Amino acid sequence: MLTLVPIRVKTPKMSGLFNMAQGKLSRFFNYKNPSSSASSSSSRLRTVRAKSGSLSYISSKYESLDYDTCENQLLVDEERTRGYTYVVQTDVARWFLFFLIGIFTAGLGVFTDVSIAYLADIKYKVLKYYMDKCLLEQCVYLTYGMWLTLVLVPVLVASILVVYIEPAASGSGVPAVIGYLNGVKMPHVVEVKVLIVRMLSTIATCVGGLAGGKEGPMIHSGAIVGGSLATLWLPGLGSHSVLHYFRQDHEKRDFVAGGSAAGVAAAFGAPVGGVLLSLEEGTSFWSLSLIWKIFLSSMVATFTLNLSLSAVEGHPGQLTHPGLLFFGKLNDTITKYEVFELPIFILMGVIGGLLGAVFVAINMRLMVFRMKHIKKKWVKLLEALTVGFLTATCGMVSIYSLDYCRDYTEASPKFAVQMFCTGSKHNELSAFWFQKSEDTLRSLFHDPKGSYSVVPLVVFFLMYFCMSIMTTGLSVSAGVFVPALLSGAAWGRLIGIGIQHVFPEAAWAEPAKYAVIGAAAHLGGICRISISLTVMMIEATGNITFGLPLMLTLITTKWIGDFFTEGVYEMQIYLNGVPLLPSAPPPLSSDIKATDVMSAPPVVFPSKVKVARIIDTLDNVPHNGFPIVDPTTATNHGVLKSAGRLKGLILKSQLLILLHSKSFNEVVPSTSEQLRKKLHMFREAYAKYQKIQLRSGWIEDVQITEEDYEQTLDLRPYMNPSPYTVKLDASLPRIFRLFRGLGLRHIIVVNDVNEVVGMVTRKDLARYRTWRHAGTMGLKELRVQV
Amino acid sequence: MLTLVPIRVKTPKMSGLFNMAQGKLSRFFNYKNPSSSASSSSSRLRTVRAKSGSLSYISSKYESLDYDTCENQLLVDEERTRGYTYVVQTDVARWFLFFLIGIFTAGLGVFTDVSIAYLADIKYKVLKYYMDKCLLEQCVYLTYGMWLTLVLVPVLVASILVVYIEPAASGSGVPAVIGYLNGVKMPHVVEVKVLIVRMLSTIATCVGGLAGGKEGPMIHSGAIVGGSLATLWLPGLGSHSVLHYFRQDHEKRDFVAGGSAAGVAAAFGAPVGGVLLSLEEGTSFWSLSLIWKIFLSSMVATFTLNLSLSAVEGHPGQLTHPGLLFFGKLNDTITKYEVFELPIFILMGVIGGLLGAVFVAINMRLMVFRMKHIKKKWVKLLEALTVGFLTATCGMVSIYSLDYCRDYTEASPKFAVQMFCTGSKHNELSAFWFQKSEDTLRSLFHDPKGSYSVVPLVVFFLMYFCMSIMTTGLSVSAGVFVPALLSGAAWGRLIGIGIQHVFPEAAWAEPAKYAVIGAAAHLGGICRISISLTVMMIEATGNITFGLPLMLTLITTKWIGDFFTEGVYEMQIYLNGVPLLPSAPPPLSSDIKATDVMSAPPVVFPSKVKVARIIDTLDNVPHNGFPIVDPTTATNHGVLKSAGRLKGLILKSQLLILLHSKSFNEVVPSTSEQLRKKLHMFREAYAKYQKIQLRSGWIEDVQITEEDYEQTLDLRPYMNPSPYTVKLDASLPRIFRLFRGLGLRHIIVVNDVNEVVGMVTRKDLARYRTWRHAGTMGLKELRVQV
Repeated sequence: MLTLVPIRVKTPKMSGLFNMAQGKLSRFFNYKNPSSSASSSSSRLRTVRAKSGSLSYISSKYESLDYDTCENQLLVDEERTRGYTYVVQTDVARWFLFFLIGIFTAGLGVFTDVSIAYLADIKYKVLKYYMDKCLLEQCVYLTYGMWLTLVLVPVLVASILVVYIEPAASGSGVPAVIGYLNGVKMPHVVEVKVLIVRMLSTIATCVGGLAGGKEGPMIHSGAIVGGSLATLWLPGLGSHSVLHYFRQDHEKRDFVAGGSAAGVAAAFGAPVGGVLLSLEEGTSFWSLSLIWKIFLSSMVATFTLNLSLSAVEGHPGQLTHPGLLFFGKLNDTITKYEVFELPIFILMGVIGGLLGAVFVAINMRLMVFRMKHIKKKWVKLLEALTVGFLTATCGMVSIYSLDYCRDYTEASPKFAVQMFCTGSKHNELSAFWFQKSEDTLRSLFHDPKGSYSVVPLVVFFLMYFCMSIMTTGLSVSAGVFVPALLSGAAWGRLIGIGIQHVFPEAAWAEPAKYAVIGAAAHLGGICRISISLTVMMIEATGNITFGLPLMLTLITTKWIGDFFTEGVYEMQIYLNGVPLLPSAPPPLSSDIKATDVMSAPPVVFPSKVKVARIIDTLDNVPHNGFPIVDPTTATNHGVLKSAGRLKGLILKSQLLILLHSKSFNEVVPSTSEQLRKKLHMFREAYAKYQKIQLRSGWIEDVQITEEDYEQTLDLRPYMNPSPYTVKLDASLPRIFRLFRGLGLRHIIVVNDVNEVVGMVTRKDLARYRTWRHAGTMGLKELRVQV
Repeated sequence: MLTLVPIRVKTPKMSGLFNMAQGKLSRFFNYKNPSSSASSSSSRLRTVRAKSGSLSYISSKYESLDYDTCENQLLVDEERTRGYTYVVQTDVARWFLFFLIGIFTAGLGVFTDVSIAYLADIKYKVLKYYMDKCLLEQCVYLTYGMWLTLVLVPVLVASILVVYIEPAASGSGVPAVIGYLNGVKMPHVVEVKVLIVRMLSTIATCVGGLAGGKEGPMIHSGAIVGGSLATLWLPGLGSHSVLHYFRQDHEKRDFVAGGSAAGVAAAFGAPVGGVLLSLEEGTSFWSLSLIWKIFLSSMVATFTLNLSLSAVEGHPGQLTHPGLLFFGKLNDTITKYEVFELPIFILMGVIGGLLGAVFVAINMRLMVFRMKHIKKKWVKLLEALTVGFLTATCGMVSIYSLDYCRDYTEASPKFAVQMFCTGSKHNELSAFWFQKSEDTLRSLFHDPKGSYSVVPLVVFFLMYFCMSIMTTGLSVSAGVFVPALLSGAAWGRLIGIGIQHVFPEAAWAEPAKYAVIGAAAHLGGICRISISLTVMMIEATGNITFGLPLMLTLITTKWIGDFFTEGVYEMQIYLNGVPLLPSAPPPLSSDIKATDVMSAPPVVFPSKVKVARIIDTLDNVPHNGFPIVDPTTATNHGVLKSAGRLKGLILKSQLLILLHSKSFNEVVPSTSEQLRKKLHMFREAYAKYQKIQLRSGWIEDVQITEEDYEQTLDLRPYMNPSPYTVKLDASLPRIFRLFRGLGLRHIIVVNDVNEVVGMVTRKDLARYRTWRHAGTMGLKELRVQV
C-alpha cells in the first residue's frame, strides 16, 4: 500500500524561539559570572519590550544568508577532481559576468531616463498648452483638472504596480540592498519580477512628479541584475558549466555588490562614487579582488550610459559632452572659494544635519502611522493618490498665487509658462513645477545671480520638504536622493542670496555655489553618507575644486545628524525589524557570555537518521540548521544539558533537497561520479529552491510515502564536518566578531568536552543593540517579534 | 642567599620550528584523507624549497600582530566598572587623535616640500651658473665636477642616514605599511626614529636628483605619525587616562591606517585618493566608522597642506589656487577625448602593463643580487654613490650631446640652460635635468604641442627608466611613484607626438593628454593600484573629465601586468619573506586539513605554573603564545597526542610582564582596584615593551632570583579564557578565513574532546601560496626560513 503524504514545512512561526528569548531575558538577569565580584551588568542593560512599529524590535522572519562554504565530502571531491583549470575558468566567467552587469544595468538606466524624459515632455507640453490657453479664457478649473489628471494617473499606475503586484518594489530599495549585503536574506529582494515592477513604477512616479527620484531604485535594480545574473538558469546548461559554481550565497552577494555599484554609476554617471557607495553602505565583506570587479562593472556601466546618452542627445561618441554630467558641468568661477568661507560651509553642514534629523524624525512617525493604520491595499492606493493630489495642488496654488517674473533666457525651462507675466517674461515658478526635478536641480546649481527671488524659493522649499517627507515610504517606487538634493539646493540658494545681499560687491558670493553645498548637506543629513556622496557630487558636476568644502560640510552634517537620529535608511531598516549587524560588537559587553546569548536546548540529529524524525522535526521546529551529534557520548558535564558530541552541521535546505531526491538507505556515495552528481543536485536546487522556500516555506513536490518514513538518511557526506563553534564561556564580542567577520548563519555553542549545548544565530546577536544619541550611549536588548 | 640571574629570552631562532616544518612537508605527502578515493593533492601541490633571495620563502622572523582582544578577567572587570561614559570618552579621544594625525602629517609634508624646493633651487642655480659660464670658458670638466658634487653629497647623506642609522628607513616604506596593515609585526616600522631618518634621507635623495620620489616615504611617515600618536606616552598621564585604551594592536592599526591615508593626502593633495589607497593596499580590516575617521584625517591633512602651501606661494587663504594642485590644473581642452580614442588608451594600458612587468622583473633580479652580494654597509654606500654617479653622468652626457633648442616661454624651467642654443632659445633637455622631477612631470602634462622633440624624449625615457629601476631598493629613502609617473609621461608624450604626426590636423591629438594616460599606465603597471590612482590623478589635476579613460587604461594595465609578474610592492614583500596573507584562502585546498597545517606538539602550561618552568620554556622555545590546559584530563583520544583539555591562552608578552612585575604566589586579584592596577601594568608595558622585545627579544631588567624560581604564577586572571579554536579535521580555507577575517595570531587545534593537539600561526598559513601567471595557476608550499 502506498499513500502519498505531501510534507509541509512550516513558515517560521517561531513561537518556541520567542518563549526562549523571553526565558533568556530572565536568565540573563539571574545569571552571575562566578568570578565577578559585582553584577552591575543588569543595571547597564536596558531591556526593551517595544512593539512592532518602533525602532526597538527585530523580526524573526528574516534569516541570515550563508556565506560560509559547506566543505562536505562533495565539495572536497569536486575540488580534487576539477583542478586549477576550473578555478581559472570560474575566474574568467566571474569577470565576464561583472562586465555584463555593467552593460545591463546601464541599459536599464538609459531606458528609465529616456522614458521619463519622453513622457514628462508630453506632460509638461500639454499642461503648458492648457495654462496658456486658460489664462486667456478664464478656465482655471480646466487647467487644474488637467494637472490633477496628469499627476494622478501616473501615480495610480505606480501605486497599483507596487501595491497589487509586488510590494517588495516599494520605496527606494536601498535599505533592502543594505540588508542583503549585510547578510540578511531579505525576501524577494533579488527577483526579476521586482526589477520589472520597480522600473515601471519608478518611471510612473517620476512622470507623475512626486517628490521621488529614480536613483535609489536604480541602485536596487542594479543589485537585482547582479543577483539574477549570478543564478542565471540557461537552458542547456550542462552540469559541468562553471556558472553552477556561482550558486552559493557568498558568490551571489559579490554580484549583488557589483550590481548596486553599477546602479549608482548608471544613475549618476559616477563610477568611483558607485564603488564607494557600495563600500560605505554594504561594507561588510570586502576584498581587493572584489573591489577590482566592482570597479569594472561601474566603469562599464558609466561608459555604456555615456555612449548611449551621447547618441540620444545627438552627439554620438562625444564622451566628454558636458550634457552627460548628471548635475551639469560646474565651472571654476562658481566653485572658487576663499578660506573665510569655511565657517559658512560648516554652518550649512549644521543646518543640513538638523534638517536631516527633522526629516528622519517626522518620516519615522509617519512610517509608524502607516504600519499601524494603512494596512489595506486600497488604503495604500488612496494614500498615494492623496499625496499626488497635494503635490499637484501645491504646484497649482503656488504658481497662481506668486507673481514673480523673470526674463526668458537660454537657461529657462523648456515649457516655462507666462502666467501673469508680460512680454518676454515667464513665471519664475515654472522652473520648479514645469520641468523634471533633475532639471530643476540643474537650474538651481547653474542659474546666475538674481535668477531667483526669495519668496518663491521659501515657498518651494517648504512645500517640497513636506512633500518629500510624505513621499518617502509611500507605496510607490521612489528614491530619496534627488528630492533631498533639491530641497537642499533650495535652502542653499536662499543662504547664497542672503550672503549676496550682505556682500553685494563680493565676487565669491555666488548663490549657485551655496546651492551645491546645501544640496549635499541636506542629502548627507538624511542619508549620512559622506565619502561616496562627495565623490558622486564631484563626478556629477565634473568639477573637483569643490571636494574639500563638500567633505567639510558632510562631516559636520554627519556629526550633527547622528547626535539626534539615525539616518533614513537605518531608520527604515530598524523599523522593519531587520536584524542588521553593525561592524563592531556592542561595547562593554564582554561580561555577556554565550550562555546568555544562545538558544537552548539545541535541536540535533544523529548522523544516520530516520526520515520520520526529520519530517517531524522540520514540521515542528522553525530552525534552519541542525547540529549533527554522536548522542552516545552525551554526558552532563557542567550544568547545561548536552545533546551529544559535535560531528557536523546540516542545513534545513540540505535536508529538504535530500528528502526531495529520496536519497534514502543509500550506500554513502564514494566514487567521484556519484559525489559530483549529488553536488550538482544541490547546486541545481539552489536557484529553484530559494524562491520556493521564501514564498511558502516548503517544497511543494516533496512526496513522502509511508514506506519512506521508515527509511534512514545518512547525513555524513552532506554535512559540514567542522562548523565554527564557541565554548559556552565565550563572550558576546567574541561571538559577534566571529559571526560578523565570517558572515556566518549558525554558531554552535559547545561545552568543555565539545558537546553541543546551544546555537547562536543572527537574531541572538542583533538583539543587543547600541544606541548613541545626544552625547550619551547605552546598550539595549531588543524584543524578537514573531 | 640571593643571586640575580638575568633571564634572557632568545630572539626567535626557531630551529625547532624549522624541523617541524620539514617534518610536516613529508607528513603532508603521506597523509591520506581516509574518506577520499584518490589522493591527487600531492601532485597538485608544488613544494618549493627555495632559498632566501627568491619569492618562494617566508621568513620566520616576522610575527603577527594581535588584533584579537584578550578578554581576561582584567578587561571584563574594567568594562564593568567604567561604564559608557568611558566609551564616549575614548571615542572622542579617537576622533581627536585622527584630527591630530592629519595636522602633523601635513606638517611633515609641508616641511619636506619646502626643504626640497629650497635646496633644489640652490642646486640648480649653482649648476646653471657653471653651465653658462663654462660654455664660454670651455671648462666642461668643472661643470661635470660640480654636478657630480651636487648629486653625490646629498646621496651620501641620504645613504649614510639609512645605512648606518636606521635601515628600516630605506626604500619607499610602502611595503612595510602594507605588511603592517595586513597584520604582520614589521620590525621598527612605526618608530619615531625611522620617521626622522626617513624625512631627512628623502629630502637628500630628492635634492640629489635620484629617480626617487617623496610620496612613498610620505605614506610611511604618515603611518608612523598615526602609530606614534596611538601609543603616545605623555608625562603625567594618569592610569585613568583614556589614552591607555589605545595600547592595543587593533587600535594602533586603525591609527596607522589613518596616518597612511593622511600621508597620501599630504603628498598629492588627494584626500579621497588617500582613503582609497589605504583601502586598496591595506584592505584587511575595515569598518564604516573607521572609514569616517580616516576620511577626517585625510581631509584635515589636505586642508592644512593647502593652507600652508597657499601661504608659502604667496596667495594666503586662496584654497582654490591652481598652483596647489600636485600635477597642475589640467584644462578641459587637453582632456577632451572622443570615443575612437578608447582603443589607443587600451593600447597604452597594454604598454604600461608590459613596461611595469619588465620593471618588476629586472628590479627583482637586482634586489636578489643586492641581498646576496651587497651586504656590507660600505658596499651599500658605494652602490648608492654609483647610482648617483650614473644619474649625474646621464644628465651631463645627454645635455651636452643632444642639441635641441626651444624658445623661452613662461612654462620654461626656471633654471633652463642655453647650452649651444642661440638667442632666446634654451636647451630642451633643461626641462628634464634642471628642475625637480615633479616640475618635469608638470611640464610633460601641460606644455603645448611641439614643445618636445622625439630624440630627447626617447633618450630621457630610456635613461630615466633604467635609473628608476636602479634606484628602487637602493639604500636611500625614496619612493617609486613620481619616477614611474615621469617615465610614463615621457613615453605617453612620445605616443602623443606620433599620433599628432599621423593626424596633424586633429584637435584631439593632444600630446599632453597622452602623457597623463601614459604616466598613469606606467605607475599602474608597476604598482597595480587602480581606483585610488584614478582618484589621485583626478584630484591632483583638478579635472574629472579624464576619469573614465584613466580607469580603462588602468584596468588593462592591471590585467596585462598580472599576467607576467607581481606588482613591485608585492614583489618586495615576498622577497623579504614577509608572511602576507591574501584576502582569500588558496583555492582547491579544502582537502588540506588542520593536521597538515598545524605545528605540533604544542607547548602548553597548566594554569598554575612554576616560574622555573616558564623561564625554561621561554628560553628554549620561540613561540609567542601558549595554550593553558588542564593536564590531568589528557587522554589519547585519536592518533595525535593531546596535551590536555584547553582552558585558555597566554601570550609570551604577558608572561614576560608578569615575570617582570614578580606577580608570584599571589592571591588572585579579585577587587576591582587590584584588577585595574594589573590592567594598567599591562597597558603601560605595551608601549615600552614592544620596542624592547623587537630589538633584542628579552626584557633587560627582568631579574629573577633563585628564590623566585620556586614560586608559582597563577595565570587564570590574565589568560584569554576562550581563544578561537578549530578541530583537527578543519580544512585550510576554514582556518584561513578565521585567521584572516578576525586578524588572529594563534589558532589552537583541538581534538574531538577539546584537548589541545597543535597550534596554527601566520607562518603555517602563509606557507600555502597561490600563484597565477600567464593564464595558469597553482598552489605552492613555501619554505619557512629560519
